Amino acid sequence: MNTTRGYTATKAELMNRLSKIEGQVRGVARMVEEDRYCIDVVTQINAARAALDKVALGLLDGHVRHCLVGGHGGPDDPDLQAEELMGAVGRMISR
Amino acid sequence: MNTTRGYTATKAELMNRLSKIEGQVRGVARMVEEDRYCIDVVTQINAARAALDKVALGLLDGHVRHCLVGGHGGPDDPDLQAEELMGAVGRMISR
Amino acid sequence: MNTTRGYTATKAELMNRLSKIEGQVRGVARMVEEDRYCIDVVTQINAARAALDKVALGLLDGHVRHCLVGGHGGPDDPDLQAEELMGAVGRMISR
Amino acid sequence: MNTTRGYTATKAELMNRLSKIEGQVRGVARMVEEDRYCIDVVTQINAARAALDKVALGLLDGHVRHCLVGGHGGPDDPDLQAEELMGAVGRMISR
Repeated sequence: MNTTRGYTATKAELMNRLSKIEGQVRGVARMVEEDRYCIDVVTQINAARAALDKVALGLLDGHVRHCLVGGHGGPDDPDLQAEELMGAVGRMISR
Repeated sequence: MNTTRGYTATKAELMNRLSKIEGQVRGVARMVEEDRYCIDVVTQINAARAALDKVALGLLDGHVRHCLVGGHGGPDDPDLQAEELMGAVGRMISR
Repeated sequence: MNTTRGYTATKAELMNRLSKIEGQVRGVARMVEEDRYCIDVVTQINAARAALDKVALGLLDGHVRHCLVGGHGGPDDPDLQAEELMGAVGRMISR
Repeated sequence: MNTTRGYTATKAELMNRLSKIEGQVRGVARMVEEDRYCIDVVTQINAARAALDKVALGLLDGHVRHCLVGGHGGPDDPDLQAEELMGAVGRMISR
């Protein structure tokens, strides 16, 4: 009986992905350290960023599924719920 | 008694924004036609794109508010609802 | 003998794409007008946005090819050139 | 006398930023581990992503400044240079 927030089902998967992303960021730092060709470093950064996007989408998916549609967690007021979610989506898009 | 989809309240506003965006795109075409400096053209494109993003966010906001939270329109199955919404958000982010 | 800015070669192509994008934006307005399902409208907006991105990349490509690498047009100072280009790229990314 | 690739000047700064981003990613993993509210986790992810974008832009800026405009490093052929740079920019935009 717990009060997890919606992405419990894939929590292990999210943790795995984040641990992999941490390694990707370390890899980017190593490339910079070694003066690797910048275009190649940027390619690695894009990979880390795409992986972060996927984690964020997984979290939002869980949020929509459990908090909004399922009615568990988050603000009670539907307008606040929508505002909060769209705020997060808007910040992802216009970064 | 109508079956509008959630963004009726701001329909006039959305129409206004889209008409302005159409003008922005025409303005970009005029700049290309006149061989204007490319950096300036790209700046105008970014303005049109940001305006399109705002329209998309307005539509999704209405969708979340009325279809998901409010339970009007869209698929009945909560899982399908979440999937559909996140699909749209995902396509906006990883364009 | 003209002073075009680097994307002349594909000017007709860019004009074509922009004219198509204008039509896409009009199509989005029509969908909003007809109260079409918001997820479908957002899909159309994404198509227009992706097309705008492609035009912007085409313009920047011409800019890099002719102004920066080729040394025609734009500021003379290499630092200003880099700053101007990266400003444009940065605004495209963090819109 | 070295053959670094263009962002040497800010190498320490880039390393600092990357080390901070690594910490941010670890912080996100901790939030997921602790079942923190998903909207808050997404906010943290956005911060890490924006920081990654800034590193990528810093690297590309160095690339443009030294390799393209300055003529040090990268392919010799101007067309290949432009293609390579725009490929990297395009992948950042349409991730």
